[in-house]
Amino acid sequence: MMVEKAVLNKIEEELSRYMDSYVEFILKVGDYILSSGGKRLRPVLVLTFARLLRGKNEEKDYPLAVAMEYLHTASLLHDDVVDGADTRRGKPSANRVFGNDTVVLTGDYMYANALYLFSIYGDIDMIRNVSDSVKKMSEGQLLELKKIGDIDITYDEYFKILEGKTAVLFGSCCYVGASLGGGTKEQKESAYRYGLNIGLAFQLIDDYLDYAGTEEKLGKPVCNDLREGKITYPLLSVMDKLTPEEKKFVKKVIRDINPKKEDLNEVKEIVFSKGGMTNTIEKAKQLIDNAIDELENFPHNEYLEKLRELAKFIVEREF
Amino acid sequence: MMVEKAVLNKIEEELSRYMDSYVEFILKVGDYILSSGGKRLRPVLVLTFARLLRGKNEEKDYPLAVAMEYLHTASLLHDDVVDGADTRRGKPSANRVFGNDTVVLTGDYMYANALYLFSIYGDIDMIRNVSDSVKKMSEGQLLELKKIGDIDITYDEYFKILEGKTAVLFGSCCYVGASLGGGTKEQKESAYRYGLNIGLAFQLIDDYLDYAGTEEKLGKPVCNDLREGKITYPLLSVMDKLTPEEKKFVKKVIRDINPKKEDLNEVKEIVFSKGGMTNTIEKAKQLIDNAIDELENFPHNEYLEKLRELAKFIVEREF
Repeated sequence: MMVEKAVLNKIEEELSRYMDSYVEFILKVGDYILSSGGKRLRPVLVLTFARLLRGKNEEKDYPLAVAMEYLHTASLLHDDVVDGADTRRGKPSANRVFGNDTVVLTGDYMYANALYLFSIYGDIDMIRNVSDSVKKMSEGQLLELKKIGDIDITYDEYFKILEGKTAVLFGSCCYVGASLGGGTKEQKESAYRYGLNIGLAFQLIDDYLDYAGTEEKLGKPVCNDLREGKITYPLLSVMDKLTPEEKKFVKKVIRDINPKKEDLNEVKEIVFSKGGMTNTIEKAKQLIDNAIDELENFPHNEYLEKLRELAKFIVEREF
Repeated sequence: MMVEKAVLNKIEEELSRYMDSYVEFILKVGDYILSSGGKRLRPVLVLTFARLLRGKNEEKDYPLAVAMEYLHTASLLHDDVVDGADTRRGKPSANRVFGNDTVVLTGDYMYANALYLFSIYGDIDMIRNVSDSVKKMSEGQLLELKKIGDIDITYDEYFKILEGKTAVLFGSCCYVGASLGGGTKEQKESAYRYGLNIGLAFQLIDDYLDYAGTEEKLGKPVCNDLREGKITYPLLSVMDKLTPEEKKFVKKVIRDINPKKEDLNEVKEIVFSKGGMTNTIEKAKQLIDNAIDELENFPHNEYLEKLRELAKFIVEREF
């Protein structure tokens, strides 16, 4: 894949190294959520942008790469509490195992620890970028929550939600990496936009797969977003093509607390027949093109190639 | 009191100014919790230490003073979720009005916003101090949670809990103020210890009042800590003076999910008769003396006088 096994191993080591609380439960919850896997895409982005500009990684890159994974993990922990989730990645969710109280506080610890690591190994410009992203993450998650069951959600609101869920943190990872590598202001901003765009595309593909995937592959029921009353791009992009009857039906389904499987399937068929799936792929590809364009501002070396591949991989991962 | 009305008014203005999310619910929850009062002790500490060293406040002091109140507010919001609280300061708690999900995310926003303000108006040394305190706050709260019903809690654990609940954030307020005022490393550290010590004393007095106060004054039932299975200083300080029977009885009461009023009163009487109340006042006074000693390292002006008064006021506030 993108990075050597040795680098991935080092990420794992450093992830446990910087969780050094004297409170046993913080270590337990941290270990539980961190060991449940994940691609470590955020640390990899930090490390790759640093190498892109500096040719190699230095020791201080790792605590910051790890800090970005902590921010992600903190947001997953709080997200599980917010959603009242029962499982994550096929395991019982941390809130089910440890309780909401412990999970909220461990999330707080991880947020604070990440910023603390930035105050030791980073600089104030990185902290500005990263703390702004954390603000946007909570805003996006809250907006998503408030838009549940709302058929009038706008593109602007939808994309703000995507930004908060994934994209701004991806953006910050790239920004931090470019900054570690000694990049110029323009390069740091390009890196941020690269991350933002692949993050948006990543989330669009997630939303696509929620309609197109199978239950085994997703690890959750198909049309789960719809079931939860969330309107995502496949449906949003065909909303103005629905007949009044179709719209009324969709409205009923997304407001239904416990929608029937047939109803979900009927919405799914509407989305497919009106071109919602193609729209989503096209939009994701366009964002990937934007991301790749931002790479023009960097030295053309093997790491640039990897970042180009990563961007393409995001849209191609499942089909 | 400590500061002029004009300064307090400016704090209120700035508190709403820097809550500028595009997400309406963040503003609503923020407004709800911020408008429910409080003494704004944290902003006042920041502003007073800056004036102590610089003779006056500058515009940039305010966003950081306000940031410290946001950190406090964020922790109150998460604390309400953790405790499943029904009321705060006599009003329904934010989690009851808005739901746990909204409250968790608004807390996250406020934490991130505070750090963001530091990245704009502060410096990296302040951020190191402040983010370390936020780590300790979540550790202290989690430790408190895990020690509920545990009769073997140690002094060390008890003081770690106090640090996390109040003291480290007070310490950081003073540190930030001293830093804004251009203080030396030694002055910043003295300021931190002043805040830490008055914070510990403040919390000891809270724990004292939980035994000694009346329901009207406290806004919650007397012996509420005990009812919740929390052992605080008054009881902790007499633990080694209990007979085996008394110890057994206390153990039963603190493990009781719904203890009887008579049982709580009996523990209260044991604490009073063994000197637990006097012990607590003495300990608080000693901490206040420590705090006042730290003020030796600052210019002797009217603001120093105010800080000395504030320290004394903390132990004298209710008797």
